[in-house]
Amino acid sequence: MVAVAVVGASGYGGAELLRALIRHPKARVVGLGSRGHAGAPVGRVWPQLAGAPLPAFAEPEEAARDAEVVFLATPNGVAMELAPRLLAEGKRVVDLSADFRLAAERYRRWYGRAHAAPELLNEAVYGLVELHRPEIRGKRLVANPGCYVTAVSLALAPLAAAGWIEEALVAAASGVSGAGRDAEGTAFAEVNEDYRPYKPAGTHRHTVEIEQNLGRARAQGRWLSTWGEEAPFRVSFTPHLAPMTRGILATAYVRLPAELDAADVGARYAAFYDQEPFVHVSAELPRTKAVLGANRVWITPHRDKRTGWWAVFSALDNLVKGAAGQAVQNMNVMLGLEESLGLEPLGLWP
Amino acid sequence: MVAVAVVGASGYGGAELLRALIRHPKARVVGLGSRGHAGAPVGRVWPQLAGAPLPAFAEPEEAARDAEVVFLATPNGVAMELAPRLLAEGKRVVDLSADFRLAAERYRRWYGRAHAAPELLNEAVYGLVELHRPEIRGKRLVANPGCYVTAVSLALAPLAAAGWIEEALVAAASGVSGAGRDAEGTAFAEVNEDYRPYKPAGTHRHTVEIEQNLGRARAQGRWLSTWGEEAPFRVSFTPHLAPMTRGILATAYVRLPAELDAADVGARYAAFYDQEPFVHVSAELPRTKAVLGANRVWITPHRDKRTGWWAVFSALDNLVKGAAGQAVQNMNVMLGLEESLGLEPLGLWP
Amino acid sequence: MVAVAVVGASGYGGAELLRALIRHPKARVVGLGSRGHAGAPVGRVWPQLAGAPLPAFAEPEEAARDAEVVFLATPNGVAMELAPRLLAEGKRVVDLSADFRLAAERYRRWYGRAHAAPELLNEAVYGLVELHRPEIRGKRLVANPGCYVTAVSLALAPLAAAGWIEEALVAAASGVSGAGRDAEGTAFAEVNEDYRPYKPAGTHRHTVEIEQNLGRARAQGRWLSTWGEEAPFRVSFTPHLAPMTRGILATAYVRLPAELDAADVGARYAAFYDQEPFVHVSAELPRTKAVLGANRVWITPHRDKRTGWWAVFSALDNLVKGAAGQAVQNMNVMLGLEESLGLEPLGLWP
Amino acid sequence: MVAVAVVGASGYGGAELLRALIRHPKARVVGLGSRGHAGAPVGRVWPQLAGAPLPAFAEPEEAARDAEVVFLATPNGVAMELAPRLLAEGKRVVDLSADFRLAAERYRRWYGRAHAAPELLNEAVYGLVELHRPEIRGKRLVANPGCYVTAVSLALAPLAAAGWIEEALVAAASGVSGAGRDAEGTAFAEVNEDYRPYKPAGTHRHTVEIEQNLGRARAQGRWLSTWGEEAPFRVSFTPHLAPMTRGILATAYVRLPAELDAADVGARYAAFYDQEPFVHVSAELPRTKAVLGANRVWITPHRDKRTGWWAVFSALDNLVKGAAGQAVQNMNVMLGLEESLGLEPLGLWP
Repeated sequence: MVAVAVVGASGYGGAELLRALIRHPKARVVGLGSRGHAGAPVGRVWPQLAGAPLPAFAEPEEAARDAEVVFLATPNGVAMELAPRLLAEGKRVVDLSADFRLAAERYRRWYGRAHAAPELLNEAVYGLVELHRPEIRGKRLVANPGCYVTAVSLALAPLAAAGWIEEALVAAASGVSGAGRDAEGTAFAEVNEDYRPYKPAGTHRHTVEIEQNLGRARAQGRWLSTWGEEAPFRVSFTPHLAPMTRGILATAYVRLPAELDAADVGARYAAFYDQEPFVHVSAELPRTKAVLGANRVWITPHRDKRTGWWAVFSALDNLVKGAAGQAVQNMNVMLGLEESLGLEPLGLWP
Repeated sequence: MVAVAVVGASGYGGAELLRALIRHPKARVVGLGSRGHAGAPVGRVWPQLAGAPLPAFAEPEEAARDAEVVFLATPNGVAMELAPRLLAEGKRVVDLSADFRLAAERYRRWYGRAHAAPELLNEAVYGLVELHRPEIRGKRLVANPGCYVTAVSLALAPLAAAGWIEEALVAAASGVSGAGRDAEGTAFAEVNEDYRPYKPAGTHRHTVEIEQNLGRARAQGRWLSTWGEEAPFRVSFTPHLAPMTRGILATAYVRLPAELDAADVGARYAAFYDQEPFVHVSAELPRTKAVLGANRVWITPHRDKRTGWWAVFSALDNLVKGAAGQAVQNMNVMLGLEESLGLEPLGLWP
Repeated sequence: MVAVAVVGASGYGGAELLRALIRHPKARVVGLGSRGHAGAPVGRVWPQLAGAPLPAFAEPEEAARDAEVVFLATPNGVAMELAPRLLAEGKRVVDLSADFRLAAERYRRWYGRAHAAPELLNEAVYGLVELHRPEIRGKRLVANPGCYVTAVSLALAPLAAAGWIEEALVAAASGVSGAGRDAEGTAFAEVNEDYRPYKPAGTHRHTVEIEQNLGRARAQGRWLSTWGEEAPFRVSFTPHLAPMTRGILATAYVRLPAELDAADVGARYAAFYDQEPFVHVSAELPRTKAVLGANRVWITPHRDKRTGWWAVFSALDNLVKGAAGQAVQNMNVMLGLEESLGLEPLGLWP
Repeated sequence: MVAVAVVGASGYGGAELLRALIRHPKARVVGLGSRGHAGAPVGRVWPQLAGAPLPAFAEPEEAARDAEVVFLATPNGVAMELAPRLLAEGKRVVDLSADFRLAAERYRRWYGRAHAAPELLNEAVYGLVELHRPEIRGKRLVANPGCYVTAVSLALAPLAAAGWIEEALVAAASGVSGAGRDAEGTAFAEVNEDYRPYKPAGTHRHTVEIEQNLGRARAQGRWLSTWGEEAPFRVSFTPHLAPMTRGILATAYVRLPAELDAADVGARYAAFYDQEPFVHVSAELPRTKAVLGANRVWITPHRDKRTGWWAVFSALDNLVKGAAGQAVQNMNVMLGLEESLGLEPLGLWP
């Protein structure tokens, strides 16, 4: 049994980590960290976990003390403060925030401050397992990808890695849990019956993370190295808030070489993902409900015969394959465990 | 007082027509037509109208008998059967279906059957008031535009009429009321927590209607003639179903001439729409909730500084500005009444 | 035209007051008061009202300056501070909070503090128009009833006034807008798919207000005097939060004299409410959606033939008949205007 | 491994059975039965299960052929036709419908037709495990209880078995999945923002099932025998439809002997349920979201100090503890397996 701690366990990502880890046959949760809830039994913070065999909440440092693996489901900026010590103590870290996803200069530009632990960046690997699996094995520090980023990058990586695209126009919709617990503007009375764009084209921070992934795919092909070569890739990305709790669905418009038809593109996706247990490529269009609660991304490429544009759709549960499920998947790969432990590829319906 | 009848009054478009017409100070509802509900008092079909001063439901022909203006809120294919006789009886017709929106050949191609009243097409005018107002005045037969079409056409017409664009990539989301009452796949248990594309790029019938409008704008400029000149315009359009009852929000990506900046584009929209009571152009991003229940379209152009693409957003209530409100607006223009009678430009919140 | 001001215009009750007052043919909004938003144009606080002909937000005192009637849609405790001066300046006040609904001693017991303006209580009348209309006419200070209270009191008043009941067991459900804007625990992600009781039997403050109304009905009969005689009445009341924005539906169990049958009870309700424009008594069961956006309460009494208990159901929109609509109705009565001005008895569907 | 078949696998109960059985370490699904979908791969009917290791749909008889245990998740009236043959073939049956829950005469009175297999009723046991566990072991035919019935019976059984109550007034709310797939009146556009009663006091068929359970508890005490003694018990039960997919919350008003206080009642519930893995008794009020996806019922008794009435609240997921989860629990008990196999006591949040 691996002793694990979840720091930031009072947020949605933390709750979802606990759901997976309780089910995980080789993990044992030894610490729940939260600055605001230290001392509280888990049921006071999370009614759905009332009575679960979990320790009480504690200060982050204490929660992590006896853990071999620490999940950091903390706001941006916290992990870069905590990770150095955790690593120094010999623990492994899976960081769900943005802290270790970008090179220091890019981080500064998009997050508006200097990186606090740039020396660790070289050691961090980018935890999009389906593109980085080989280099994740055995690592100590994994940067878990952003939710939108996972949906878009997995949708377009086969095309970018084939050298077929270098630009994409993306409109994506997300449920409000992506904003976090008690985020402003997420009151039910103002979200129900509301669909709206936010941080439009060119302004959302996930833009650069998508470009980085697809630029690496262009330069490196099937399997990526985090700090390896990167070709230019341009994304115009606009997220929208949909009146639902969970789920992301991305609609990406791209131009492919004119000679490619549906069979060619289908074969490309099949070759890329056929061995992947958590990627479902299908001619049936994806929908968020089909992946609710599941560690799965559903991808469908579609050609507009009239205009020649391709629309590639992908759906996932932002809290599972877009966050906590992917994080547990990363832990399994880091430790050499069976990759699917604790994870469900099938969803909850209705 | 104008005597009006609503045929198809048991559908959502019909209900919304009644809401506007009850409020309308110069209209009196004299007939509610529905094949399936003839004889029923209005409250049996529409609980929100229980006790309203409205006639009972009747067969369509009977419902229309004493009306000067007949609204046809019927499924595609019905209006082309009913309209010839209604017009022959001297009535005016506002058709909310697709029957009189396209030239006969286009109709055949996209709707898969021959038009049943092609001789009336020349007489029909296309009721997108903000683009066709002059030619609607005094007319007898108006083809009320599609809901998505209204959102996208009003969003892009200023750009097309300026000759700045000839192509657009559109991802739009709609509430489920757009599918009609008891449409398949709209059960709450399968819609809640679901966001999904349908009829993807190149396959939805509203595509050609959008192209037709923007092609006319390119050829004709500010005010359009229904059967006048048309330049080519290409749209790749993908609708999505969002878990909400009402509302459409369209996100349209276009390329503008490189020398244009936000001030130029803002000035263009201002010049185009400043006198329009039901068009709200704003730097604030639109959201469907802000126009719920209102006869209003909210438009925001936005430039992606990194890629040069522009995203133009527009929101409306699919049952109001996208259907029934627009239909009443058309009636007002046809009859020379004040255009805003019966219509509310402000929404319901929360 | 009556000059009116809305203080607390940045809350949901305030927004709904504005929706009614903009439509009101004899009212003109001259002030929007809000401590937190002074200076803001209305569209910055309320997107659905962007562009409406309304003044900017101001400090409460300034907003009220030129008004003849002031609506106080403020948190409990504020009106008792503001009202004395407003009245001294010759204005009329409709208070939507609980400040003037209870006698001083009751207020202290249920709200946990001394009343700040007990000398005004005698002058205040309780604004449940359907029970207090005669005494509201011409008054200067009206205490607008609570939302649950309106639903339950109107449902049971005919029975209490007949001397048939002196106890009721009530389970009611409300949409989350009743909790106010940005209230804790109202995040979409934690409300969607959640139905729950809160402040259970015996602990919600509306209990005493319901008991007071029905006790007065027992003692006084058809038309009530606010500070008149009161008989004992016991209510065990449990509110629940339903995953919706608007609406209250109350289910009240009562025992009626055994000799009464459905016809007797139906006749009683008919005699009581037949002249009331905003009360709909029907054999069809009520539902919140049927009264959404409407100033209407829908009441249905039902006898359980097996057990002899009666269930009386009533539904209303908590923000309209349960708050702002009722407040405008009160203003109309106070001023001797036609009672329905600015109010819609019909709802929005779907 | 036990070979199991699910007949009625295209309904919501069927889908939820599959979710549990796929997870079940000692069960293997060998048949999916559905009259309407024979031949379809599972992913065509259930997108959330696309790619799951399950057989294709088949006619019910074929689906059941190789099974040792057959779950019948079919409409009322089907199981009484299918069960005799299945039992004759040596299979065990868990019936999720109402067919084997009531004695023949009661069935006739509430379901309006004669029972088709009355000779099997004696053999059937009532599968409310927490009240009937001893007699379920080893049985061949289990009648899985109704969803509302489970919530109310478990909430009140400790009180009835103590001889403290013989009457209850119940108002309960359910998500719309309880009505089944594509049930009339469940369109999203008419359910969202709607809360309403249906089949009010005295008319819902679950009334008699609740009375039967609590009457048996009164007569028999802690552990019940299906066809054993029964004392009178009266319930006035009113269900409501809430705008959500899953969940039931029941609010039951009862009178307890005056000398009992909260400690007495708490001790009673503790003694009754402390060993039950799927019953959570708590001073914290229940909510449907806390048990979403979980095989768990959450119960809270509360005393109204002012009136002396007690309100007992209970919440469960209608598709899990109210249907499929309970059915799998029954199978585990029938076969002598560990009772919790395939079942999750913890929920999904948010």
